[in-house]
Amino acid sequence: MSVTAAKGFRAAGIAAGIKENGNPDLALVVNDGPRRAAAGVFTSNRVKAAPVLWSEQVLKGGQVSTVVLNSGGANACTGPKGFQDTHATAEKVAEVLDRGAIEVAVCSTGLIGVLLPMDKLLPGVETAAAQLSAHGGEKAAIAIKTTDTVHKTSVVTKEGWTVGGMAKGAGMLAPGLATMLVVLTTDAAVDSDVLDKALRAATKVTFDRVDSDGCMSTNDTVLLLASGSSGTTPGYEEFAEAVRTVCDDLGQQLIRDAEGASKDIKVEVVNAASEDDAVEVGRSIARNNLLKCAIHGEDPNWGRVLSAIGTTSAAFEPDRLNVAINGVWVCKNGGVGEDREKVDMRYREVHIVADLAAGAETATIWTNDLTADYVHENSAYSS
Amino acid sequence: MSVTAAKGFRAAGIAAGIKENGNPDLALVVNDGPRRAAAGVFTSNRVKAAPVLWSEQVLKGGQVSTVVLNSGGANACTGPKGFQDTHATAEKVAEVLDRGAIEVAVCSTGLIGVLLPMDKLLPGVETAAAQLSAHGGEKAAIAIKTTDTVHKTSVVTKEGWTVGGMAKGAGMLAPGLATMLVVLTTDAAVDSDVLDKALRAATKVTFDRVDSDGCMSTNDTVLLLASGSSGTTPGYEEFAEAVRTVCDDLGQQLIRDAEGASKDIKVEVVNAASEDDAVEVGRSIARNNLLKCAIHGEDPNWGRVLSAIGTTSAAFEPDRLNVAINGVWVCKNGGVGEDREKVDMRYREVHIVADLAAGAETATIWTNDLTADYVHENSAYSS
Repeated sequence: MSVTAAKGFRAAGIAAGIKENGNPDLALVVNDGPRRAAAGVFTSNRVKAAPVLWSEQVLKGGQVSTVVLNSGGANACTGPKGFQDTHATAEKVAEVLDRGAIEVAVCSTGLIGVLLPMDKLLPGVETAAAQLSAHGGEKAAIAIKTTDTVHKTSVVTKEGWTVGGMAKGAGMLAPGLATMLVVLTTDAAVDSDVLDKALRAATKVTFDRVDSDGCMSTNDTVLLLASGSSGTTPGYEEFAEAVRTVCDDLGQQLIRDAEGASKDIKVEVVNAASEDDAVEVGRSIARNNLLKCAIHGEDPNWGRVLSAIGTTSAAFEPDRLNVAINGVWVCKNGGVGEDREKVDMRYREVHIVADLAAGAETATIWTNDLTADYVHENSAYSS
Repeated sequence: MSVTAAKGFRAAGIAAGIKENGNPDLALVVNDGPRRAAAGVFTSNRVKAAPVLWSEQVLKGGQVSTVVLNSGGANACTGPKGFQDTHATAEKVAEVLDRGAIEVAVCSTGLIGVLLPMDKLLPGVETAAAQLSAHGGEKAAIAIKTTDTVHKTSVVTKEGWTVGGMAKGAGMLAPGLATMLVVLTTDAAVDSDVLDKALRAATKVTFDRVDSDGCMSTNDTVLLLASGSSGTTPGYEEFAEAVRTVCDDLGQQLIRDAEGASKDIKVEVVNAASEDDAVEVGRSIARNNLLKCAIHGEDPNWGRVLSAIGTTSAAFEPDRLNVAINGVWVCKNGGVGEDREKVDMRYREVHIVADLAAGAETATIWTNDLTADYVHENSAYSS
């Protein structure tokens, strides 16, 4: 299903030889229209990969006919040659599919600082183009995996129209955005302004609130393409809700597949004076290595939660803070609360509630524990 | 040597039974004058332990006659009862040593959220007082250890006067300050204003630039006590230099003993537009879990350095950034530089230079790698 669940799209995923292990590494997503409306959200890292710099320019036109994605190399920190390679990739796609290069978005993921093997990538574009199919969504989702253990897709079907998509990401997950590539498609008949508004609203409360390890990527890209082939124009709220649902689902799949994780942690901040306060506190908790280690050890160490809250600028009084872990209020009024022995930490899902007792706003950040497996995976990952 | 290297001080370290394993856990440092001038710097965490709240009040008077320190419990997030316990500890010290409680600073370190065993601690004060000695500095340094594998002391001896001190800290090391207790003593005849100025200048470029794991403690305290017993009043610059040297030495000892670390990493940011920029970039690099894992794996992964720089607000152009690892400029002008195979990563010391090419300012942050041992130690540490 994936990016081809919505009508008007074809996709393909192949092994072009970019990855030395022979796994799939090149994907195409083609919008056959009648519309080619599109919106995009990109990493806020100031060191941006060549494909991000290129695709930002493409999206300024509000039209995307094709997305070409590769794993096996991020094409980041690769200088002018890297940008030329991205440009050449878009031109190759345009030539093979007889479209304009300025409507071809490019996404890359993999190791930073290495040039892509263009002698493999460009012929791969031809091979992928020959395999484009209205059933190719899953193969495309598989081809963009890096350290992902599973491919990620999601679909919401409404009355006469559909939003679907695929995502890759398993580490370097942090807001602004998480390290990931996401392509969403819809056959709803909406223009690029509506796509942009719905996409930004959705990513702000989904991908932007997934924080695996606090490390922000150079390549994050989330694209939303509309073909209009359903002929249906949904109301904005209904459309935005569908986009948010797909983003939320994919975001959850990303965090569940985070590198080395053994626990999925939902950090819910409640009774904050503002949503910004709630997000700041949630992020601080989600990024606290000591807490993440404690959760790994099934230790409901609420002191580390308070210590993390204390580093923020959010409105709160230390002696009014409350913390619940898996439903047990282990910290009340800034001190010892219910018996921590009551906390059952045996399951993969962990739910931390931080009550700031300072207002009525709330936000939820998703993270995972810090494990020896994370260290092992990221000590060895340079190939 | 430690806190009793300077004349006019006595110290003791004993096992009071606060730690269940019977290790030393209570220390006293006494200033016998003639002066009792003092200065202090405390954690900037807004969730402050009871002893920090107490000692901040004590230091407002600029006079400290005695410091009582315990390991085995942080007395943080312990509510009104925790503060009462700190107060009772100061009163007990005052009574036993016939001094005013308002000149007794209190420091605690250990697990957050647990009340101290006052039935052990208060009798321990009497035992420690009976063992006070002008040679007790080392025992005091040993008694404040938590997960430290070694005790940390440092001494600088000048013409007729001395600055010495002790430190504890092995995890939760982050600026503002690192998680640590530090007591410095001097027999120089200087008043509390001079002590305060010299101490703040020193911590700003030493302890504040040690960042083991980005986690800021609730208990950090650095105290500097002057007895004046040398009768010598050094010039400010010379005195400040001596204080900075001792702080720098102790800070280095802290980072070398960081929990689970296998590499000591010096992150030097050069050619920044401002010192603040240099510090912000240095911290961002030092806190990047992916980079810290790569260093652990002896992988000179400069892409992760650039990715970390990109998350800051410092002045720089991505295509002018340069990065050297152990002397090899692996990244030049934002892209591939010298052959990364030339980088020798076999030794414990790792030196990263990030050249922002944006000015003339510099700063150095000290950190360590992220290891499976760190995860193991902090998954199990709740007792």
